[in-house]
Amino acid sequence: MTFQLLHTDSGSKARHGLITTAHGQIPTPIFMPVGTLGSVKGVHFKELREDINAKIILGNTYHLYLRPGTEILHKAGGLHQFNGWDRPILTDSGGYQVFSLSENRKLSEEGAMFRSHIDGSKHFFTPENVVDIQRVIGSDIMMAFDECAPGDADYQYTKKSMERTHRWLKRGLERFDSTEAHYGYEQTFFPIVQGGGYRDLRIQSAETIAAQGRQGNAIGGLAVGEPTEVMYEMVEVVNNILPTDKPRYLMGVGTPANLLENIALGVDMFDCVMPTRNGRNGMMFTSEGIINIRNEKWKDDFSPIDPNGKSYVDTAYSKAYLRHLFIAGEMLASQIASIHNLAFYLWLVEEARNHIAAGTFAAWKAIMVKKVATRL
Amino acid sequence: MTFQLLHTDSGSKARHGLITTAHGQIPTPIFMPVGTLGSVKGVHFKELREDINAKIILGNTYHLYLRPGTEILHKAGGLHQFNGWDRPILTDSGGYQVFSLSENRKLSEEGAMFRSHIDGSKHFFTPENVVDIQRVIGSDIMMAFDECAPGDADYQYTKKSMERTHRWLKRGLERFDSTEAHYGYEQTFFPIVQGGGYRDLRIQSAETIAAQGRQGNAIGGLAVGEPTEVMYEMVEVVNNILPTDKPRYLMGVGTPANLLENIALGVDMFDCVMPTRNGRNGMMFTSEGIINIRNEKWKDDFSPIDPNGKSYVDTAYSKAYLRHLFIAGEMLASQIASIHNLAFYLWLVEEARNHIAAGTFAAWKAIMVKKVATRL
Ligand SMILES: [Zn+2]
Ligand SMILES: [Zn+2]
Repeated sequence: MTFQLLHTDSGSKARHGLITTAHGQIPTPIFMPVGTLGSVKGVHFKELREDINAKIILGNTYHLYLRPGTEILHKAGGLHQFNGWDRPILTDSGGYQVFSLSENRKLSEEGAMFRSHIDGSKHFFTPENVVDIQRVIGSDIMMAFDECAPGDADYQYTKKSMERTHRWLKRGLERFDSTEAHYGYEQTFFPIVQGGGYRDLRIQSAETIAAQGRQGNAIGGLAVGEPTEVMYEMVEVVNNILPTDKPRYLMGVGTPANLLENIALGVDMFDCVMPTRNGRNGMMFTSEGIINIRNEKWKDDFSPIDPNGKSYVDTAYSKAYLRHLFIAGEMLASQIASIHNLAFYLWLVEEARNHIAAGTFAAWKAIMVKKVATRL
Repeated sequence: MTFQLLHTDSGSKARHGLITTAHGQIPTPIFMPVGTLGSVKGVHFKELREDINAKIILGNTYHLYLRPGTEILHKAGGLHQFNGWDRPILTDSGGYQVFSLSENRKLSEEGAMFRSHIDGSKHFFTPENVVDIQRVIGSDIMMAFDECAPGDADYQYTKKSMERTHRWLKRGLERFDSTEAHYGYEQTFFPIVQGGGYRDLRIQSAETIAAQGRQGNAIGGLAVGEPTEVMYEMVEVVNNILPTDKPRYLMGVGTPANLLENIALGVDMFDCVMPTRNGRNGMMFTSEGIINIRNEKWKDDFSPIDPNGKSYVDTAYSKAYLRHLFIAGEMLASQIASIHNLAFYLWLVEEARNHIAAGTFAAWKAIMVKKVATRL
């Protein structure tokens, strides 16, 4: 993997770059749709390519490990061969999912024992075997196994958790550096900055992560319940330390406004279930603001979902028709909402790239953060 | 609406024709995907046009009357404007759905009182207002309000029910002939043959229906639990009476083999929820036979869903991947299965048309009825 920094904004820390992987190039800033089980819910891969313009998608190691499992993934020749997506894939480490199973997992220095949410079967994740699993998945970008501390964790808990994450990182890197790709193409491995909402821990963690000299770095443990201002503060602190010549991935973030603010702070990569999950509940992110399409006010509004929308669903379907589909519980409602929202997110980061390249990012961002957060 | 008979098969009663409506032409024999609430579940209209090659879809008067309701449909300018489907639409009369609400409806000579399956609210359908509703929907082909007697109904019940259906038909036709289309284009109205599994009743009903001299005729009350042989016998009896220069629509039928047998008996139009409903449960109809994709045997079969399939999903996704999506409960599973099955049904009737035109229908059908019913 390589990263080329193409433009830096003079009015902010925003950057526009280009990541090159074995499965193609990714212009940054970029948003990565979440394909939990190897599919983005409600969306065909053809639509991801042609209508949404996705450049890279995310897969969840925890979910893929349980279903279809590593045996089938290995037999298929990796996830790209299995699901037919030929562009880059990033996999998380499974840490976030395992630590969400509060009742059903047990943490030790060695790793995390957990019970499957499907059948209660017992499994054990370690910093090492999570590398092995991601080798079998064949993701272009693999993530370190980390503990993502809760947003309300106290200082001592967060510090201990961060220190363990650093020890786990060492073990994960050793395994990564001593193993090879299964399928002949290069994989890379991103370490993750932790440290909760505590400046000094974030500084300490960012310095530890930067010192690894890896091809890219991630910021984890944010957007987990802390105030938005804390998130921005932590990202700023961390980005002052992470190297400028490597992409920075802010995990699990966020709203359109969150994306714009964090781009201004120098973040290059994002992922979030919000456009698809909230979409399935009828929340539409548009260029004019946020629409709750289930609201009765749209029942006879026959105008397009988003007049500036770039996907065909924006003009093929009206607000009134989409509302009808939601109220009637039709599957097509979720499909339309997911395509629209993802296309909007991809459009938003593309616009950000264009404005960074043109030197007009700061002014554009100031207008857009207000627009995209407006409730219509 | 006009109907042009283009070819008749010498080895059977099969026919190939062309229906012309205000929203375009429909080659026959044709299969009509069911779009209950104005959307075919799991399928975009773009996919219906480009991938499935649907020429006409069906809407359900009962469901559309309840949601979104006639007020919104009228404001939109009819269902075509509301959902964006610009090809022909046929609507059933709501009779079938109302009579399925066994506990929640009360039948009288005047019509049928029923309670909504959504909120329990009371409604009344009559032969007349069902015409009015379909005028508001703006379907190209409207259906008469009929009572569809259960498959196991006795002779007396079936006879009385048929006679009432004939009286209702007279009322429906009077309303149809004395009202005009709302949106400026022509609508037509098909009467429905009833009579259960009783030859003499079917003859009597077919003569009554044929005598109306309408632009097309339907056969109802079949595929409701009776043996397949009874269905074929009734269709044969009826088709000996229905005029040859009008299209014949067999309602709610059926499996791929049912389609082929009934095409051989001179049926021109079909609709059925089977390709989408069974598809959502993992049943795939293919050119080689029927697949239960949830079966473990497909877990590492990385071959295409249907090597002869005409839709992009057939080659874009493998059996193993589709099985994974079903087992994991992913929405995309239903979407893929629905597109594949509908494309297969549309391919099957297209092949039937080609073979009728080429004079090779009977031999082709003999091979295909066995193939499509094979369990793989
Ligand atoms: Zn291998
Ligand atoms: Zn009108």
